[in-house]
Amino acid sequence: MVNCSLRKILLTVEYFGKNYAGWQCQKGQQSVQGVLEEKLSKALNQQIKVYGSGRTDAKAHALGQRAHFFYAGNMPCEKIASAVNCHLPDDIRITESVEIFDSDFHAQYSAKSKTYMYKFYISRTLSPIRNLTAAQIPCHESKVDFEKMQRAVKNLIGTHDFKGFSSVGSGIKNTVRTIFDASLTKKDNEITLVIKGNGFLYNMVRIIAGTLVWIGIGRLGEDAIEKTLQSGLRKNAGKTFPAHGLTLLSVEY
Amino acid sequence: MVNCSLRKILLTVEYFGKNYAGWQCQKGQQSVQGVLEEKLSKALNQQIKVYGSGRTDAKAHALGQRAHFFYAGNMPCEKIASAVNCHLPDDIRITESVEIFDSDFHAQYSAKSKTYMYKFYISRTLSPIRNLTAAQIPCHESKVDFEKMQRAVKNLIGTHDFKGFSSVGSGIKNTVRTIFDASLTKKDNEITLVIKGNGFLYNMVRIIAGTLVWIGIGRLGEDAIEKTLQSGLRKNAGKTFPAHGLTLLSVEY
Repeated sequence: MVNCSLRKILLTVEYFGKNYAGWQCQKGQQSVQGVLEEKLSKALNQQIKVYGSGRTDAKAHALGQRAHFFYAGNMPCEKIASAVNCHLPDDIRITESVEIFDSDFHAQYSAKSKTYMYKFYISRTLSPIRNLTAAQIPCHESKVDFEKMQRAVKNLIGTHDFKGFSSVGSGIKNTVRTIFDASLTKKDNEITLVIKGNGFLYNMVRIIAGTLVWIGIGRLGEDAIEKTLQSGLRKNAGKTFPAHGLTLLSVEY
Repeated sequence: MVNCSLRKILLTVEYFGKNYAGWQCQKGQQSVQGVLEEKLSKALNQQIKVYGSGRTDAKAHALGQRAHFFYAGNMPCEKIASAVNCHLPDDIRITESVEIFDSDFHAQYSAKSKTYMYKFYISRTLSPIRNLTAAQIPCHESKVDFEKMQRAVKNLIGTHDFKGFSSVGSGIKNTVRTIFDASLTKKDNEITLVIKGNGFLYNMVRIIAGTLVWIGIGRLGEDAIEKTLQSGLRKNAGKTFPAHGLTLLSVEY
């Protein structure tokens, strides 16, 4: 039940996920949501519960996670960010706080789409610096056919049943999603996937990332994405790539 | 005393410095050199001491630190990197290992120059992801006059007495150094300083970084670098910027 005198505040949150068991509160583990709720409650002097746009995986990052909460107080909304930020650890920051006057708005249910980024670097040796936010493709650059990956990624666009791109046992029933855009860019030995869709299944972006890499190194054919979409079989896709290469870029309303 | 049967191996080392008290071994603190010596000794089954090209500050990073060591064994030099890397933590990697046949070569004393990078990002809010390897300039982008910084940085080039750009009490006598090149580039709200010189005083790059920022935000005049060089006074320069924005790019022999 929502008290009418409560204000609704929408946050944009950036985090480096290495030290967190993901966005969502989990017993006995440090979560971004948990830290945010603790510090918001402290800074605003009231018990705050935040409603995120959705979970992010353990160790995954966000540049534009969104979350709303209800607040009984007079602090100007743009001040809330700085009031809380000074209590937050350096790996989490509220980059924007705005007031929402639409009583139906919900950070999760009002989202029209989300955009994820997955970063790779091609190197036989792990790079301590790149590996902070990108996943290693452990081979020589000449072994990765980037053009093939670029052609293959386009097959994701559209409305498809993405069952084959979700982790077995996730238990979700409706596995149809629409991908509005998906593209790959390359600069030196770094490859970046940007993918925008109306929703993503559990591990979907990380399985897509792994499938693209396996297409690039020839371990899967160029048609592996179509095959996985058509069959719905997880075994036709590549491996689930690690979470530390994944960043939630933005949530669109 | 160097045994003639010992081989001399030169390493290129990349590290993310956040968890280290710098390159050099220090009692009771974790250093990159200390971890390397421990893991090299283990992997090569002999006591190894490494000779670095020089110290790097606590929390500073390196893409191309160099260090040599003496090795009594038959392992092909290019195998040494992979043999040791599997024992190293993810924040340190040997990216190259080569054998040196010049008996006079020393990773520190044979260095002709070093190239450092200092990265900044302009943002009123700390960015958890950028802040891993770049330092925040905490203001609005419009408040930073990048062209002024670009003009000022050129005054560093040449042979000068850099006494004013070193931390007071470093105790070093000869403070004359030659800067071969220094330049600033900007992409969106990120600024990168690359500086190459025959040597650098204690904290010199970090003080130069702080001085350039203070020139950019108008806290110091555009002539602050010339003034500091001419006077030799630390007080004419800007503040020492944090180590986490600093990366040793390469050592040239």
